[in-house]
Amino acid sequence: MSTAAAPAPPGDPALLTGAGARALFRAGLDTDTVGWAAASAQANLIAVPRADAYDLLLFAQRNPQACPLLDVTDAGSPATALAAGADLRTDLPAYRIWRDGEVVEEVADATPYWRSDMVAFLIGCSLTFETALLEAGVPVRHLEEGVIDPMYVTDRPTRGAGALSGPLVVSMRPVPAHQVAEAVRITDRYPDVHGAPVHVGDPAGLGIADLGRPDFGDAVTVGGDVPVFWACGVTTQAVVAASRLELAITHVPGRMFITDVPHTAYRR
Amino acid sequence: MSTAAAPAPPGDPALLTGAGARALFRAGLDTDTVGWAAASAQANLIAVPRADAYDLLLFAQRNPQACPLLDVTDAGSPATALAAGADLRTDLPAYRIWRDGEVVEEVADATPYWRSDMVAFLIGCSLTFETALLEAGVPVRHLEEGVIDPMYVTDRPTRGAGALSGPLVVSMRPVPAHQVAEAVRITDRYPDVHGAPVHVGDPAGLGIADLGRPDFGDAVTVGGDVPVFWACGVTTQAVVAASRLELAITHVPGRMFITDVPHTAYRR
Repeated sequence: MSTAAAPAPPGDPALLTGAGARALFRAGLDTDTVGWAAASAQANLIAVPRADAYDLLLFAQRNPQACPLLDVTDAGSPATALAAGADLRTDLPAYRIWRDGEVVEEVADATPYWRSDMVAFLIGCSLTFETALLEAGVPVRHLEEGVIDPMYVTDRPTRGAGALSGPLVVSMRPVPAHQVAEAVRITDRYPDVHGAPVHVGDPAGLGIADLGRPDFGDAVTVGGDVPVFWACGVTTQAVVAASRLELAITHVPGRMFITDVPHTAYRR
Repeated sequence: MSTAAAPAPPGDPALLTGAGARALFRAGLDTDTVGWAAASAQANLIAVPRADAYDLLLFAQRNPQACPLLDVTDAGSPATALAAGADLRTDLPAYRIWRDGEVVEEVADATPYWRSDMVAFLIGCSLTFETALLEAGVPVRHLEEGVIDPMYVTDRPTRGAGALSGPLVVSMRPVPAHQVAEAVRITDRYPDVHGAPVHVGDPAGLGIADLGRPDFGDAVTVGGDVPVFWACGVTTQAVVAASRLELAITHVPGRMFITDVPHTAYRR
């Protein structure tokens, strides 16, 4: 997707500011954002036409652990309070264009698809609490193994809103038994990025048959650790897809919006 | 407003359940709800037509300290997840009917005014954290003096949403200097009922000229204590009034909706 003129990635992308990273993506660089601008919180993006925005806003209000809203833009505006000067249409590495609930295209620049009544939702990302887990010495398996965290569709329903309903999607991180309490304590301090786990232990309690076969992301080694499950922002995409919205624009998984807000701002 | 057939208040209303209290109000009893069903959280009510609900929902998302949403109903439904079997049109002691931003009537039963597209917002009430303050030995002056807490319009703007904008309204409680930290610590644990103070000390810092002349509620004795200011749910009513909404239905100040949810459920 990146063009011949795209800038080269910097030596250490972790040291960039949010604005520095966004400028590279705006210029055409396409990369996943894990580890980029390490001090800055990242966010999931989903933009929908104003006519569908009420249901999505209500859905988020009713399911705050799956869908913690960091910001919601004015209809038609690509600006956000989370990053001065940012343009949400261009400042992510890549976008998915959804029509009638299906991804029809992946693009580097969403401007041609951004209708004048689009409302953008920026949703908290677990990268923020993963940073805190690592700092406390709690291992994060999918980072160790260099893959995307495994996500599973559960048998637990969300609370529907208007046309939107569907099952809760969770992410899973295996945690050593003696560190489960610490993992709960740490993530509980970050309610804006999914907060404390929704389930600790037996996957069957969430209707998950096989941890080795996630619905999204990659399987990780569980070994003798306890599988710990957090509400996941992918819930929103799954629900929006199921409801076959006319148009939605989202980030590509792993290619997030980098804000100017430090991770610590979301710590309670 | 209560009719001749209205039931007598019970011996000790603090011991009622939420459902017990609601049944009395539904039958016509009109009283303020401070101290009623003491274990149950109470909520502010504001209902608006669906056409105005998006702006109000977005306003709440952008101003969560002033407008912490405990529940938002489906359009047209008088039911809430906070209280099984409750009917929001009848189960409060009294209602205000607003047209074009003005109170035109106070009624015991809002049913005749409840259009088929009304959306009700239930907003957290500081009664929940006041209970926690009292349990910790922090005095609550307006309860001691048997008056409504003083509220002030500040010079601090809220973050607007669509047609809605206006100044932040705060409530004030004088706290002894040695207990200010404890008051902050306790209320910070209740983000769904306004959370930690927005300002501690000099009222001029919020543009408040005279603590003795509140804009809403009653003045209380400050003495040598520190004035401590919390974001207040009246912000919403002030903003909705300023925007001259076609129709709104709210509780009458002090006559709240009593939920089935224990105060402790809102403690983080």
